[in-house]
Amino acid sequence: MKKLINEVDNIVDEMLDGMVAAYPQYIRRLDGLDVVVRAGGSKGKVALVSGGGSGHEPAHGGYVGKGMLDGAIAGAVFTSPTPDQVYEAIKAADGGKGVLLVIKNYTGDVMNFEMAADMARDEGIEVDQVITADDVAVENSTWTTGRRGIAGTIFVHKIAGACAEAGGSLADVKRVAEKVIANVRSMGMAVDACTVPAAGKPSFDLAEDEIEIGIGIHGEPGVNREKIGTVNEISDKLLDKIFAEGIYNSGDEVAVMVNGMGGTPLMELFVANKHIKEVLDSKGIKVAKTLVGNYMTSLDMEGFSITLLKVDDELKKLLAAPADTPAFVQA
Amino acid sequence: MKKLINEVDNIVDEMLDGMVAAYPQYIRRLDGLDVVVRAGGSKGKVALVSGGGSGHEPAHGGYVGKGMLDGAIAGAVFTSPTPDQVYEAIKAADGGKGVLLVIKNYTGDVMNFEMAADMARDEGIEVDQVITADDVAVENSTWTTGRRGIAGTIFVHKIAGACAEAGGSLADVKRVAEKVIANVRSMGMAVDACTVPAAGKPSFDLAEDEIEIGIGIHGEPGVNREKIGTVNEISDKLLDKIFAEGIYNSGDEVAVMVNGMGGTPLMELFVANKHIKEVLDSKGIKVAKTLVGNYMTSLDMEGFSITLLKVDDELKKLLAAPADTPAFVQA
Repeated sequence: MKKLINEVDNIVDEMLDGMVAAYPQYIRRLDGLDVVVRAGGSKGKVALVSGGGSGHEPAHGGYVGKGMLDGAIAGAVFTSPTPDQVYEAIKAADGGKGVLLVIKNYTGDVMNFEMAADMARDEGIEVDQVITADDVAVENSTWTTGRRGIAGTIFVHKIAGACAEAGGSLADVKRVAEKVIANVRSMGMAVDACTVPAAGKPSFDLAEDEIEIGIGIHGEPGVNREKIGTVNEISDKLLDKIFAEGIYNSGDEVAVMVNGMGGTPLMELFVANKHIKEVLDSKGIKVAKTLVGNYMTSLDMEGFSITLLKVDDELKKLLAAPADTPAFVQA
Repeated sequence: MKKLINEVDNIVDEMLDGMVAAYPQYIRRLDGLDVVVRAGGSKGKVALVSGGGSGHEPAHGGYVGKGMLDGAIAGAVFTSPTPDQVYEAIKAADGGKGVLLVIKNYTGDVMNFEMAADMARDEGIEVDQVITADDVAVENSTWTTGRRGIAGTIFVHKIAGACAEAGGSLADVKRVAEKVIANVRSMGMAVDACTVPAAGKPSFDLAEDEIEIGIGIHGEPGVNREKIGTVNEISDKLLDKIFAEGIYNSGDEVAVMVNGMGGTPLMELFVANKHIKEVLDSKGIKVAKTLVGNYMTSLDMEGFSITLLKVDDELKKLLAAPADTPAFVQA
């Protein structure tokens, strides 16, 4: 394993310090905790708090800022944050109007965020939650009951965040978050596995001509392993599974995310996007907005995921609203 | 070689189509050419045109938009664009106030951009140029006489672009570009080489415990190959060479870029930034702005570069000005 790190045990701690050192205008770290919150606080608005295991950067700390999140908790690599850390994040992010937790559907995350929510409610903080489960690859998996939450979560941050920024109530913010969740689906693949620093070796092995379809964001097993084809063929497989949901139909409008897993050249994501756009055009589905880049990664994994979000006028407007965070800025 | 592509020969063409398909609000492609220009044109302002071989995405097409570039030419992977393509970019980007070419210092790039400039001048277009050569690693290299132009080039795009957007004359824009070039230095390293699609294998081999210091953005040889150390030790080596330039001293203010080479997890770049910030603090050098991410890549190369730009009030103001492009947005 060759990693640009110091001590394996200090990665998350140093990463958070390095993130805050880069973006003090946006975020500050809570003393002694693996939590970042908005530098200027969140007074007078509904607060959005998300998080999960580390290794998915820029998720989630990179999305803390105006128009998106108010707080983010970073667990150890690919490990759920503990309830006490989530609890501290809720307390620090709360601006007096309630807190919405955006939880990716992994058993540990859901359990720990829910315990933290209970602790915060005991202190009189109004807390509600949504659970993202956008990955259509598998119905249950290593670390989940039900589908996994992956890159589609970023659309929840953006859209619910815009609603909160515009003064929406906790119920409003939860409603649009649920609307995104109902209309967003993703699926990913890997050309090569990632290497968790503490493990020191790739989480699985693929032959020189093999890929894994339906991979999650932790190197959990996908749907099937097969010979590599063209990126058009691969994209078709991912899209077919997403279209099979029956959500995206002719006349609809969608936002698209072509998300790199961390080790994938941007050039290849753009090549993929050309075909994705053509497929959507051929189906009479209009593209309202496209994001191409590393939004929800899996350390150094090579591969990508496709996310589609069906948008109506309300979601389109919230998606287009300004945002100003370390990893996502929109004028 | 496992790449997410279709045909090796079509990569640049499909990549540009995929980029325009993602960002039609920012860029359009010139018919039959590997050139993107601003969707809304550049009428009434000085135009900035840059480019070079492909494989460095988001450079340079990702920086075409308000406050940065007006046109970008994409050569074949790691290959200089031809003079006729550069000429067409100049013609299309010209808004009647002249064109500044931002050329990275590689022999082929300089020659072809200069030939194109001559062709454009013959048509009555005012064209001037600057050459970036920020890489302190080597004095001459495989493809250069003099130092190589690498990630520091992005600061030229940003700052000269802001000057042009504010109505600066061609002489003004050239002057601030030259000021950036005089004050910006970079150095990079690789943990693993990149694989050029047409070659099909890594451009060099590193042992399981080896890194290459002073690498460029094409897999050209660096300064020396050595055993991997901690990222703090590696960062110190890069910074020492940059500080040896004598430009960055106690009391100065700098902008910092911690640039990923394409295959490097963002987590590791943040870990590096923690130490870089501490070193700058210890030297009494103030950080005005930090960028951490994939700004000037080398396909799937794993590694990073550090760039420092000394800023005065003028450069700080231009650096802080709004920008709105596919890959760099600042509110």
